[in-house]
This record gives sequence, C-alpha cells and structure tokens, in this order.
Amino acid sequence: MPQIDPHSTSNVVIDLGERSYAIAIGTGLIGQPATYADLPRASQALIVSNTAVAPLYAEQARAALSAHYPQVHMLALPDGEAYKTWETLQRIFDALLTHGCDRKTVLFALGGGVVGDMTGFAAASFMRGVPFVQIPTTLLAQVDSSVGGKTGINHPLGKNMVGAFYQPHRVVCDLDTLQTLPPRELSAGLAEIIKYGPIADTAFLDWIEANLPDLLARAPQALAHAVRRSCEIKAWVVAQDEREAGLRAILNFGHTFGHAIEAGMGYGAWLHGEAVGCGMVMAARLSAALGMVDAAFAERLVMLVAAAGLPVKGPVLDPGDNAGRYLALMRLDKKAQAGAITFVLIDGPGRAVMREAPEALVRSVIDSCCAG
Amino acid sequence: MPQIDPHSTSNVVIDLGERSYAIAIGTGLIGQPATYADLPRASQALIVSNTAVAPLYAEQARAALSAHYPQVHMLALPDGEAYKTWETLQRIFDALLTHGCDRKTVLFALGGGVVGDMTGFAAASFMRGVPFVQIPTTLLAQVDSSVGGKTGINHPLGKNMVGAFYQPHRVVCDLDTLQTLPPRELSAGLAEIIKYGPIADTAFLDWIEANLPDLLARAPQALAHAVRRSCEIKAWVVAQDEREAGLRAILNFGHTFGHAIEAGMGYGAWLHGEAVGCGMVMAARLSAALGMVDAAFAERLVMLVAAAGLPVKGPVLDPGDNAGRYLALMRLDKKAQAGAITFVLIDGPGRAVMREAPEALVRSVIDSCCAG
Repeated sequence: MPQIDPHSTSNVVIDLGERSYAIAIGTGLIGQPATYADLPRASQALIVSNTAVAPLYAEQARAALSAHYPQVHMLALPDGEAYKTWETLQRIFDALLTHGCDRKTVLFALGGGVVGDMTGFAAASFMRGVPFVQIPTTLLAQVDSSVGGKTGINHPLGKNMVGAFYQPHRVVCDLDTLQTLPPRELSAGLAEIIKYGPIADTAFLDWIEANLPDLLARAPQALAHAVRRSCEIKAWVVAQDEREAGLRAILNFGHTFGHAIEAGMGYGAWLHGEAVGCGMVMAARLSAALGMVDAAFAERLVMLVAAAGLPVKGPVLDPGDNAGRYLALMRLDKKAQAGAITFVLIDGPGRAVMREAPEALVRSVIDSCCAG
Repeated sequence: MPQIDPHSTSNVVIDLGERSYAIAIGTGLIGQPATYADLPRASQALIVSNTAVAPLYAEQARAALSAHYPQVHMLALPDGEAYKTWETLQRIFDALLTHGCDRKTVLFALGGGVVGDMTGFAAASFMRGVPFVQIPTTLLAQVDSSVGGKTGINHPLGKNMVGAFYQPHRVVCDLDTLQTLPPRELSAGLAEIIKYGPIADTAFLDWIEANLPDLLARAPQALAHAVRRSCEIKAWVVAQDEREAGLRAILNFGHTFGHAIEAGMGYGAWLHGEAVGCGMVMAARLSAALGMVDAAFAERLVMLVAAAGLPVKGPVLDPGDNAGRYLALMRLDKKAQAGAITFVLIDGPGRAVMREAPEALVRSVIDSCCAG
C-alpha cells in the first residue's frame, strides 16, 4: 500500500488552462483560514449547506472564512436528492439577492453532491457567473461529483437535465468529514471509487480489493489514498475532455443503468452511489455478454460491489415489462441520441468504450440482474 | 446616407475564436432553407416563439427548417417581459424532454428579446448546453439583445439576475419582421440604436438624427443601415470583452436608471427600450452635471429620444422619496458592487466610461427628470 501521510495536505491539479484549479486533500482543512487564503476576494461570501451537514461543519467554515470575507452568510437547504430541484435552487438566488450580494460574491458548497451540484449551478447562473468553491463532505462528492465542473438540477423527466459546465476555483476535501458519514453513504462513495478501476486502472482495482476492510473501517491512510487516486484519474480524464465530447463519458460507467434505477424508483429512494454500484453490475455483465471482457472479471466486480455494502440486484420497476421500463428510462439519458442508448462498457480490464448494444441482449441482462 | 441594398443579405461577424458566428441581415430570410444551410445537424429542432409572433412567422420558419431537420417542434410562450420567469423557462425544458430531444437538438429563438433571452438560457442549460440560433423579430432584439450571448431570466428582486453567457451559432435578422412591429416596439428598438451614437460613434448619431423620419416610416434601406451599423459596433465591443469584465459595460448606457424604472414599475409596464430611452436622458444629464459633457450634447440626445417616440420623463416610483427608491433599486443592479452604483456616463461625445457619482447629484438629476 502506498505510504501517504493523511495529516499532510496533498494537492491534485485539474489542468484546464485558465480554468485550472487544485483539489486539496487532507485533514482539518475546513476550519483553517489558510485553506481559503488565495481565493478571489469579495465583500461577501455565502456558504450553502444542508440541514444535516451545517450543524457539523458550518460554524468552523464560517469562522475560517471570516478571516477573508467581511460578511459570511449561511444557507442550509433541505437534505437529499429529492430536493435537487429548481425550487431549492431558487432559495440560493433569494438568499444572494436578499443579502445584496454582487458579481464578486464567492459561493462555498459545503455538503454532498446535491449541495455541490446546486451551488455550482447557482454560481454559474447568478448574475451570469460568480466564483465558487467546493467543500465536499461525502466520500462520493470528494471522489467524483465535486471535481470536474458538472453542475445542475434534476427535472421530473430526467436527472441532471438542467445545468452547466462550470469549474470551481478550488475543491477542499477534508477527510475528517468522512468519519461522521452514515455507513450507507460511505458505501455509496465506494461505488464511484471502485468505478475508476475497471475503466482506467486495474492496479487501483487490486488495491481497493486488498484494502476494502480498511476503507470500510475508515482508516485515514486508506481513505487518503483512495480519494487522491480517484481525483487523479478524474483530473486526467476531465483535462482531456472538459465538456464530455468524448472520453469523459467513460466516467459514466454504471450510470446509464443507475440513472434508470434512480428515476424509476423516484429520486432519493436509492442513493446515487447505490444505483451506480448496481448499474456497474449490469454494465459489466452486458460487457461480458457482448464478449468484450471475461465473465470472471465481471463477477469479480460484482463481488467487490457487494463487499462494499452496495446492492447488486436491481429493483423491479414494472412487474409487467421490467426491462421495457428500464429501456424507456435509459432512452431519456443525456447520452442517448435520437432514442439510441449508448452504454459505457468494459473493453478488457482497465479500458472503457462507448457503444450501443442489441436490445434483446440488454433485456436479458436486465432480467438476470433484477430481483424477482 | 450609405447605399445599402436591403434586398441583399449582408453579414456581420462576431469574432470570438471558436465561438465566432455571423449575423445575417436582409429580407425574406426566415422562410428560406438556405438561411439555415450550414448549421449543426440533428434529428430534432425546436422553435421557441411567443403567441404574438408565432402566427406571423412560425410556419415559414418550420417549413424552411424541415429541409434540414427530420422533426421540427414548435412552442409558443406567453408574450411579454412579465413572463421572463423560471416558470416560463420550465415550459421549454418540458417541451424538450417530452419530445425526447437530445444533446444535439438545435433551438431556434423566434421573437423579441424575451424569447431570445429565455431560449438562449434554455439552450445553455439543457443537458448542460445545446446549440441555438437567434431569429430576432423586433428591432430591439436585432440591434442589441440577440447579439453577444447574454441570456437569462428575471428574478422578483432584479432583472436578468439568473442567466449565462452563451453564444448562438447564428443570428438571423429578417428586416421584413420590422414591418409588422407595433409602433411602440419600433420606438423601443430605436432607443438601443440611438445608444450606440453617444457611447461609440458620433457620425452614426448624426446619421440617426438625419434619417429618423425614414426609420420611423420603416424605410427598408434606413432600417438595413441602422441594424447593420448597430451590430457592427456591438460586435466590436463584445469581441473585446465577451463576459463584461470591462469595456462591454458601456453597452449598458441608460440601463442602470432604466432597470430601476422597469423594476419599480413592475416588469412589462414599460418596454425595456422605453426605460432605456428615459434612462439615457438621466445618464446624459448626470454626465453633464458632472461636467463630463456639454449640457447642449445632453439636451440634443434628449430631443432625439423624444423624437423617436420615447418617454423622456421618468415615472414617480415613490411619492415620499422618489430618488431614494430609484437609488435602492439601482443598488440591486448587477453592475453595483458592495452597494456602490456604477454609472455608464458620457465622457465627451462618442466616448463612455464607468464611474460612481455623488449621491446628492444623482438625486437632483432624478428629481429633475421625473414627472411631478
């Protein structure tokens, strides 16, 4: 196992020219004024959090930010994917305008993926764009959603259908926050960490398998390595394809099936990471059914997903025509074009490709993966 | 007067590197398939219009676009600034998702500034960005709002507070549409044309004064020149400062006072161009009061605004403290920072600058400009 001191801060840089920024990974970061030392200055800052995270970390964030911003406002949104809506987003705009915030005001997203996606979209849109900083407090947000500039909200007809590509000025991954995470959310984050193995790095996959007990026990050294390596892979992909014209889509491994599960169950019933975990099972088995990867590799991934505490059986969304319901929902996925579903599939361990698949084969994989 | 054949199409190019695009100016453009020949291809297109414009031009636009897109959908929004809201924007997303539109779908904004701003923001945000084309059908939209990539919606606490900088792929200015424009909207468009004179081009100001009767009579040759010269000046400014970090703000001459009028009266009571016309009167007189330009130049501008059929007296927004109400509303303007109002002022004919002004002087200008 690589030796990383979790008490020293390490930086991963996302190289996007003038939009480049650093992901700081370490402990005790949220409450240190130094964490925010070289960000854009303004007379006001707004911390956007949720009702679950704010009581734990908002006060230390506010104290540290007060060293740099004369006025630091706080807004706690309701917690959960079900609130990733325009109505909730509107509360951020209301707060900004009520406080008389201006074009220089800096937004800080303190929470998980929902808070980060909504705060990022609010920053992209308020007065046509103000700076923002991600302070992800869930494992999933630290290794995936806070990095790369995807922001947005859900629409009743589809997930993340409204949003922007808008890069933060900084991502602050404070590993301390992972110690207070509910076990279900820890597992959800592991889904996105596991994802990086089959699509890009089989050595990392080996490492995750070997160190899963430490990760589940929240050993700081193991978490530090998992977050850092995940961010490195994501940074490498995003730097090559910021707006998902091609390569970046491989990061959606497991997400096409996963989005169908989330939409079909109603947003929030399954955690995003749970749906992705189960979606990876389906995508891996579809890859094997297409002869692109050994069935043994797919089943190895299924074992790891299960061991991480994630569901490996999909929900039945429609007892009459379950596979048909999955297919209909997947046709609404943003990657679909003219009704054709493009899957992220494993083309040999460590390599992902985008391609369509015969409907009959997709149906049989869904049938075999769903709880009867 | 420059000799322009209004029946031949001329192009003004906005030079923004890979986001460059052309503004086509001419007659009979909407119904010609050739107008849309080299735009991005897709299986679907959506024309967004409003209930006033759609009956006049939507069918010819649809017929012409059908030569290039297998499916062309139509959406007519309610007409007016009062509908430039999230609720109306949501109808565009609903239409896109109900029709199964995808990331390649091209949006066409057929209407005035409200339709253009909302359709542009919908294009910026749908699936984090799809291509769009502006087909402005009002004079104001042809010379100002459809050019330069400012998109957005209003918030109850301020105009255009939520939006994006997002460039269209093409702007199509069909001069025929100006023949059916209500007189009040023709005058509103003249306000933005007049604006380009004092801030950038005194020769153009002379030309407008000399040709105002032809413009009011909708002579195609005069309209063609006014639209073309306005777009050239706007293109020159936007190419230097796409995201309004500096220079571009001069295009907001008259808009700080104008936005206060619009917000104070309730959006839609005054047309945007009417508020800008009256706002230019206030800004010109404030410039003169600061000794930056002769009072005679300010009064020349007031005469021209009046001759164009625009109001030169501001409304009383609060009989108790009218100037105080204007000031409070202007502090919410996007250009304000930390509560300080920055005005676009005339620093000698043909040259605009951004600066603050003593409150007492601003108050006295407001008092002298408002109907008692």
